[in-house]
Amino acid sequence: MVLRSDGRAADELRPITIQKGFLSHPLGSVLISCGNTRVVCAASVEDRVPPWMKAQHVSGGWVTSEYGMLPASTGDRMKRESSAGKQGGRTMEIQRLIGRSMRAAVDLNTLGEHTIYLDCDVIDADGGTRCASISGAAAALALAIQSPYGQQNFMPFALRDMVAAVSVGIIDGEPRLDLCYEEDSRADVDMNVVMTRSGKFIEVQGTAEHHPFDRRQLNELLDLAESGLKRIFALQQEILDGAEIAKLEK
Amino acid sequence: MVLRSDGRAADELRPITIQKGFLSHPLGSVLISCGNTRVVCAASVEDRVPPWMKAQHVSGGWVTSEYGMLPASTGDRMKRESSAGKQGGRTMEIQRLIGRSMRAAVDLNTLGEHTIYLDCDVIDADGGTRCASISGAAAALALAIQSPYGQQNFMPFALRDMVAAVSVGIIDGEPRLDLCYEEDSRADVDMNVVMTRSGKFIEVQGTAEHHPFDRRQLNELLDLAESGLKRIFALQQEILDGAEIAKLEK
Amino acid sequence: MVLRSDGRAADELRPITIQKGFLSHPLGSVLISCGNTRVVCAASVEDRVPPWMKAQHVSGGWVTSEYGMLPASTGDRMKRESSAGKQGGRTMEIQRLIGRSMRAAVDLNTLGEHTIYLDCDVIDADGGTRCASISGAAAALALAIQSPYGQQNFMPFALRDMVAAVSVGIIDGEPRLDLCYEEDSRADVDMNVVMTRSGKFIEVQGTAEHHPFDRRQLNELLDLAESGLKRIFALQQEILDGAEIAKLEK
Amino acid sequence: MVLRSDGRAADELRPITIQKGFLSHPLGSVLISCGNTRVVCAASVEDRVPPWMKAQHVSGGWVTSEYGMLPASTGDRMKRESSAGKQGGRTMEIQRLIGRSMRAAVDLNTLGEHTIYLDCDVIDADGGTRCASISGAAAALALAIQSPYGQQNFMPFALRDMVAAVSVGIIDGEPRLDLCYEEDSRADVDMNVVMTRSGKFIEVQGTAEHHPFDRRQLNELLDLAESGLKRIFALQQEILDGAEIAKLEK
Amino acid sequence: MVLRSDGRAADELRPITIQKGFLSHPLGSVLISCGNTRVVCAASVEDRVPPWMKAQHVSGGWVTSEYGMLPASTGDRMKRESSAGKQGGRTMEIQRLIGRSMRAAVDLNTLGEHTIYLDCDVIDADGGTRCASISGAAAALALAIQSPYGQQNFMPFALRDMVAAVSVGIIDGEPRLDLCYEEDSRADVDMNVVMTRSGKFIEVQGTAEHHPFDRRQLNELLDLAESGLKRIFALQQEILDGAEIAKLEK
Amino acid sequence: MVLRSDGRAADELRPITIQKGFLSHPLGSVLISCGNTRVVCAASVEDRVPPWMKAQHVSGGWVTSEYGMLPASTGDRMKRESSAGKQGGRTMEIQRLIGRSMRAAVDLNTLGEHTIYLDCDVIDADGGTRCASISGAAAALALAIQSPYGQQNFMPFALRDMVAAVSVGIIDGEPRLDLCYEEDSRADVDMNVVMTRSGKFIEVQGTAEHHPFDRRQLNELLDLAESGLKRIFALQQEILDGAEIAKLEK
Repeated sequence: MVLRSDGRAADELRPITIQKGFLSHPLGSVLISCGNTRVVCAASVEDRVPPWMKAQHVSGGWVTSEYGMLPASTGDRMKRESSAGKQGGRTMEIQRLIGRSMRAAVDLNTLGEHTIYLDCDVIDADGGTRCASISGAAAALALAIQSPYGQQNFMPFALRDMVAAVSVGIIDGEPRLDLCYEEDSRADVDMNVVMTRSGKFIEVQGTAEHHPFDRRQLNELLDLAESGLKRIFALQQEILDGAEIAKLEK
Repeated sequence: MVLRSDGRAADELRPITIQKGFLSHPLGSVLISCGNTRVVCAASVEDRVPPWMKAQHVSGGWVTSEYGMLPASTGDRMKRESSAGKQGGRTMEIQRLIGRSMRAAVDLNTLGEHTIYLDCDVIDADGGTRCASISGAAAALALAIQSPYGQQNFMPFALRDMVAAVSVGIIDGEPRLDLCYEEDSRADVDMNVVMTRSGKFIEVQGTAEHHPFDRRQLNELLDLAESGLKRIFALQQEILDGAEIAKLEK
Repeated sequence: MVLRSDGRAADELRPITIQKGFLSHPLGSVLISCGNTRVVCAASVEDRVPPWMKAQHVSGGWVTSEYGMLPASTGDRMKRESSAGKQGGRTMEIQRLIGRSMRAAVDLNTLGEHTIYLDCDVIDADGGTRCASISGAAAALALAIQSPYGQQNFMPFALRDMVAAVSVGIIDGEPRLDLCYEEDSRADVDMNVVMTRSGKFIEVQGTAEHHPFDRRQLNELLDLAESGLKRIFALQQEILDGAEIAKLEK
Repeated sequence: MVLRSDGRAADELRPITIQKGFLSHPLGSVLISCGNTRVVCAASVEDRVPPWMKAQHVSGGWVTSEYGMLPASTGDRMKRESSAGKQGGRTMEIQRLIGRSMRAAVDLNTLGEHTIYLDCDVIDADGGTRCASISGAAAALALAIQSPYGQQNFMPFALRDMVAAVSVGIIDGEPRLDLCYEEDSRADVDMNVVMTRSGKFIEVQGTAEHHPFDRRQLNELLDLAESGLKRIFALQQEILDGAEIAKLEK
Repeated sequence: MVLRSDGRAADELRPITIQKGFLSHPLGSVLISCGNTRVVCAASVEDRVPPWMKAQHVSGGWVTSEYGMLPASTGDRMKRESSAGKQGGRTMEIQRLIGRSMRAAVDLNTLGEHTIYLDCDVIDADGGTRCASISGAAAALALAIQSPYGQQNFMPFALRDMVAAVSVGIIDGEPRLDLCYEEDSRADVDMNVVMTRSGKFIEVQGTAEHHPFDRRQLNELLDLAESGLKRIFALQQEILDGAEIAKLEK
Repeated sequence: MVLRSDGRAADELRPITIQKGFLSHPLGSVLISCGNTRVVCAASVEDRVPPWMKAQHVSGGWVTSEYGMLPASTGDRMKRESSAGKQGGRTMEIQRLIGRSMRAAVDLNTLGEHTIYLDCDVIDADGGTRCASISGAAAALALAIQSPYGQQNFMPFALRDMVAAVSVGIIDGEPRLDLCYEEDSRADVDMNVVMTRSGKFIEVQGTAEHHPFDRRQLNELLDLAESGLKRIFALQQEILDGAEIAKLEK
């Protein structure tokens, strides 16, 4: 087994830090770092629901997400989407994935007529931004539900289960956990796995970038993902149990 | 086992028709029907590549896709995206999936400085439009490569493998193949599987809409998908072998 | 008299087919073919009217139209307008023309608080798409009014008169009926004539592309248009009388 | 015969003023007033042609038009289109008409690689803004061609013929010339006629707003339009002959 | 002291004309000319206020401004912002400045639930368009308040004070009043001063274009501005006292 | 003298922290905190200049800025501008101010054909975001010029002078330094002062929000601003002298 570019073993996560309360205003917020990737995740509440819920007589609340990258978060400066006048397809795809994952974590019926926005803003990107966003947004969401506002305005047990995500992939024929950008850009297969703490899948998105994959490889990747996710759930729990910061060190 | 709303067995595809040459102008085109879902798929060629390929000194050609729905293709008329002034997130997510799937089917290095556009326009929607689009687009793409233009302008063996897609899902606790809209809208799990004819995965996208799923369910769904995809590959082959129309009847 | 590029006489229409019920969902729909031009025309109903009608205290219903072309409907692939982020001027001009023509066909006061959308989507273009759209949209509109929904929700005699359209032009100094793309692109004068079945004009739009025209030429073109329109009205009537398909063959 | 709301006879134009050189910067400009409608028309030149001309190997120059209305030009303030983020369909339809009319007035091959922009900005609107724009823009265009810059950069005889436009319509069953807003908004038929000074048609656009019209009515309207246009051509000529201002008084 | 390019002394305004009632429809309007810069300023009223006022329970009325330039108002034709699909940053910055200045001139609580729009459209630009817009818009606003509609719908003393603006700058080391375009484009310092008639500042915006400036220079510029503004207030007063036109000649 | 809401004296800055190298990728970056306001400032370089510089034959490099706020940076969540499809007027006004200030700090001729982007992204807002952005962006810009890349690609002395900004205002009749949000929202006068380290003004923008101000008040505000700016320049210098973090504590 060859060492990876950053010296990790194939089944090793990058160092992770989750820092609670990174922002002043939102109900819940964290700064999550996975290796050199850093994402600010915030949960804000509005006391109304999207118009389509009213139109279709859907009761309960709503949870949605928006994702963005600071222009200077990448190696070559990215064009600012607000200046370009629209969000790109990748942004839309990612924020839809985050939103679906968060909705799987809560019971919408317990939220009353509120919308919870999960804003995930990448300040430093080195691969795995969508998975870090999901793991961080779930923590911010849980903090918002735990907050005094959440306790007064939502029903008990609004949070059904914790949710986290990790990427896995096949590089040089070898399954690997938690790809950094350099690995991600040359992976044969790239997969994002979103799970509940209780060990079930919310999303499995595997993509053959260069070589199609078979069932055995798929199952190896899922095994890797599960092993990594257990460690992320433990970090989230530290934060929900009151820690200001939770760290997984090398 | 309960019969499905349209009388199918759980592992039964809807009737499928692939009609070759539905449009006059593009290099390759089909009308694909999967039950009541109908999609016009067209492969058009431009003799230039996207600017980023030039900027990044990437040689070869490019394959991309655009997806749309006629406003009257759905039960309640949809707002026309050109009139709304932008493509929605669902549209972007789908056309990115189609594009990735098609790029997995061809060797981009054999295309020269050409871009192949796969336009998938849904004229009637009853669930499974993204999978029908992929199966139809792959046929249109293969027809374009087979065409006299393709034979003159691309290198041999541009088509690496055929590609098709099918949806599977869990409804009322039961894994089912090829969901119609009524099933899709109340599925617990919804999965789209894109495969090569040689039996490997290009994309696996499983989403828990209401209940998270476990590894056993994932594998059952993949089994179902594989069984259905074999029949779709056979229909595509009929078209590539010269048939004007290929049908899978109930 | 020289034969035209497709062998027609100067006063001869291209073969026309109107196929009823081409789409599953809308209240009325047809696929209309005029030579190689094919347009899907659909009439959908919403139970509300535009905000300006409320604001200006205008009672009754509204009829409007949207027009689009599939990217692969033309010789060189057209850029998709939803992806470009706006409808072009030609699209807007055409859909305004279709909308005005349809509003001339119905008594808006009989529709109650409903808006009828006429969606005209060109799947194959070979000249005359706006005229084919009008002739097809009028059939779809009449089918919607005839439908059980229409009979329950609109007042009797909502349809005041049938409407159809045809193009005429001067090519190589000769007035000709129903121009195909090749003729249209080199016509000296191009005219679109929208009439009622009772023989009156709803729109006359004549444009000198290269050489201005005089009153005598204008009247010759209108004679030609009237002769062609009679045959189109007969086809529409077959559809309204219950035929699944109506054909004008060469 | 009933007098019109402003006391005119049915075949009488409103007072017209064409004031030369209203703006400092463009090559040619006029302020045209037709009754209470006032439009600033400007002809500006750029020394390049649209990219499609290069792409399609079309030689010569280009002439195009843009049309706008000041927000305060109408009875109820209009939303500013730059603030709304797009031009409406009516604006696009009108500026395409002006552009086509101007291109009919010049020989594009004589212009070299230049684009002439005709900007028509309505500062006061009381009906007939598109016709006033055409008559004014033609004067501005002719002034630009006559200018020292035009004489140096364009070939002789760039201007093939003068062009002007007038509206006619049927109100209360009576054909009338040059409709003001009050008449336009309740006309049964509304027609815009663009002619050359030599008496031929460039555009004839007749629309039945409420009642379809027949051939006899069409011809009466064209007679009225021709009679009015002669007087407008005379005013344009005064300007081209050197007058600072040309007036048609009641 | 060197004479300026147009022969003025350093502390001399360009000739100014304010013409009342330039437009037919709005409640108040002027055409203001400052040298070769000409701006149409109009005050229109709508009987509603922006949604945020309702949402935030702010009572009273609102005053806002929009600014635009005709494409042919500048030496090289500017792209039309409605065609570009958005207002540029300079436009936004200027219309925000005009809006703030106008809100400083009125007591919003006296306006009832009305919004006054100040539209400033530049038809000829030669420097100082934002200042001319403010001085003209204030006159249009005062005329609207003086109008019969204003007297009926607003409370007395809606106008707290008159407002006007002038530019000053340092060119070739010398402080100068009321810069024309040629001076503005090479000024070391450019400052816009908005004052009340009673001699207090509403906005002071000084920008070092090439060389930073010190407190002494700032005070010299403010002295110059004050001296010029007195003369502009006198012209505004002539208009409010009933003059059709007010002129400051060289 | 009354104590301020946060206990500061009228002439006291909030605590300030400048943290160097907050981001991994850009050439220079800082996180600047001014009280509860926090802004990420990054200087990125592209090796090309804006097209207008080429078109107008302007040599040298360019410096520009973009400004944004995270949706969760404010008390009530702000709508994301990329999702809204455009930058608001306030955003544009601020980023233009930052850009002008930065261009005043460097000699554009020394930059070669490079564009330096200063991205200022507010992650927590409590008033004074534009001033914090300018002070932070200037530090990031200086770090970029100091960097090995800057030393190789720019000429010596590219940085002409350091630049910083602070807000001042009049609240309850009292001039105060460095307003927090609560003060800013009820200030009678609000002024932003951008200075060079050598003590000259780059921008002075004073706005009367409720009460116009006189010359004496203007000068008092400028005195206050100057006193605060000296302390900010000292912090910037610490960073440029090699400190990882510079702090001004209460």
